[in-house]
Amino acid sequence: MSKKILFMTRGKGIVDMFWSEEARKRAQKYGYQVDIPAADGDILDFDFTPILSEYDGLITSWGSPMCSKEFLSHAPNVKVIGHSAGSVAAITDATTYECDVHVTSANPVMAEAVAEWCLLGTLLAARDFWKYAQWKAVSPMIWGLPESEVRDITQLTVGIWGMGDTTKHLLRMLKPLRIKRILVASNHSSAEELAQYGAEKGTFEEVFSQSDIIHCLVGVNKENLYRVDSKVLSTIKDGATLLNCGRAKLFKEQDLLDELAKKRFTAMLDVFHQEPLPQDSPLRKLDNVILTPHCAGYTGRNLYIPFLFDQFEKYFTTGKMDYEISLNRYLTQTNERLR
Amino acid sequence: MSKKILFMTRGKGIVDMFWSEEARKRAQKYGYQVDIPAADGDILDFDFTPILSEYDGLITSWGSPMCSKEFLSHAPNVKVIGHSAGSVAAITDATTYECDVHVTSANPVMAEAVAEWCLLGTLLAARDFWKYAQWKAVSPMIWGLPESEVRDITQLTVGIWGMGDTTKHLLRMLKPLRIKRILVASNHSSAEELAQYGAEKGTFEEVFSQSDIIHCLVGVNKENLYRVDSKVLSTIKDGATLLNCGRAKLFKEQDLLDELAKKRFTAMLDVFHQEPLPQDSPLRKLDNVILTPHCAGYTGRNLYIPFLFDQFEKYFTTGKMDYEISLNRYLTQTNERLR
Repeated sequence: MSKKILFMTRGKGIVDMFWSEEARKRAQKYGYQVDIPAADGDILDFDFTPILSEYDGLITSWGSPMCSKEFLSHAPNVKVIGHSAGSVAAITDATTYECDVHVTSANPVMAEAVAEWCLLGTLLAARDFWKYAQWKAVSPMIWGLPESEVRDITQLTVGIWGMGDTTKHLLRMLKPLRIKRILVASNHSSAEELAQYGAEKGTFEEVFSQSDIIHCLVGVNKENLYRVDSKVLSTIKDGATLLNCGRAKLFKEQDLLDELAKKRFTAMLDVFHQEPLPQDSPLRKLDNVILTPHCAGYTGRNLYIPFLFDQFEKYFTTGKMDYEISLNRYLTQTNERLR
Repeated sequence: MSKKILFMTRGKGIVDMFWSEEARKRAQKYGYQVDIPAADGDILDFDFTPILSEYDGLITSWGSPMCSKEFLSHAPNVKVIGHSAGSVAAITDATTYECDVHVTSANPVMAEAVAEWCLLGTLLAARDFWKYAQWKAVSPMIWGLPESEVRDITQLTVGIWGMGDTTKHLLRMLKPLRIKRILVASNHSSAEELAQYGAEKGTFEEVFSQSDIIHCLVGVNKENLYRVDSKVLSTIKDGATLLNCGRAKLFKEQDLLDELAKKRFTAMLDVFHQEPLPQDSPLRKLDNVILTPHCAGYTGRNLYIPFLFDQFEKYFTTGKMDYEISLNRYLTQTNERLR
């Protein structure tokens, strides 16, 4: 019997972004009937509750209603909710997890896009690109730099703080490269697990003090909030590169600015304490940083709903998703929202 | 019995670049005794012939003498020559291959460095980095660019012209990424072989006209010399990115300049018809190009001699190298020297 799915968004822009060719093909493959009230235009005041009883599953995204226990009381047949975005903190609350529904999100797919940004940053740094490359017409190419002054990936240590989905994708992408040593600081992963990914286990302090390239891919929680201060930053090696496309609030903003102003190391940043980054931010005036406009998660939006449908189908056929958001995981994601 | 190897260079700089910790360890592993006359300083007028009879193998590099039949007549025990660089055209001639010696080079290791540059370029292009990234302090970051205006690797075709060592490494590095389609134009590789690398076989014309990102990794020969002219360039898709870290002379220089001046597509170039690229080159004034100073082959020099020693040891123990330069391969490499 064909399952009925409601894509519960109010914005046509969201439909255009996520209702991809791949999504439509996946729906067809599984025989899902997918209804999309916003397909022809924004429906900002639309009330979904009267139609909920028709559906077996819900796709949510940015701007979807909160799927509380009360809301779900109108949806007696809904067993699966797939969030076409990262954190589910905006569409579920603690009462959701009291209901007989299974929640999943596209976080692992978004993590792959973020890992791509990290791979790009790793290569830019490993190649010392900004020492000599001509970027458009404005930053002149330096010819004749001795090879010995250009970093060599075969002699570098890459350090990663955090071992979530993004790190796992990044480690997979780094595997074909000849990086000398990959150091991961994680409270949850054993040395054995890390070894399977080609990495060594290190401490937070070691990642900062021993790495030539440092990635910050840990969630924000009470212990991590503003943990990277001038003391930590002062341990970074001369000439190293610090990358952050995770949470800006892992850093003390002024401490980061002060350290970068010393030009002792370089940085590549995608997230900022205030976004959009103000035009007069000192970061925009530093020639040792590369900035991107919080876009690390871009790419692969077309694959979000196919991933969610795969999870739905796993549930419908086996009773168990591969990537289910439990109450605990929900609480972690909420906690990350400290930012 | 311990083999004696002569590192036949005249420059201390060459010794410093290649006689790495890894090389010393490999010599130790195989029990090689390695002599390096230039270890303590340049020996520009040194004559190697009087000492050649002591050695079982030779390591050559930039500036080493030509190992002709006449030269090798002084080296009756030399069975292996390892060239710590790419093409052997400078250290062997046709008479070398009449002798009972086996020649190898570090070309496959250099190819890995070049593939790294291509991977970096692929990601810069796939992410449309130069549309919005702030590069040092000079190229302002663009905030608020709609996602739909940023390219998405999951929807891109990467095209590669040529299927040599560099392409093989690049395909291996691209494998963990979510590239929609990889198209390779090669006269020598079958569709089946390419499929094993995750690529499809295409024609030269298809690589240029159907790809969003185009790599030129073919050797120069009579058919390829200046093959990319304005007609070929005009078939490139709007908004595509053309990368070249191979041979500048695959392109007609003025045609490339004229096409880039139209700003219809972007480019990332590491090789130029005249090197160093003249300060007044129009390329330096185009904001749709990224330039690097012929450095794609940098990185991993420390691994050249270990690779050559591995080849030596294969020969000494099995009679056959994995990567041996035959007369035919030598002629190809010489042919590439048309540039």
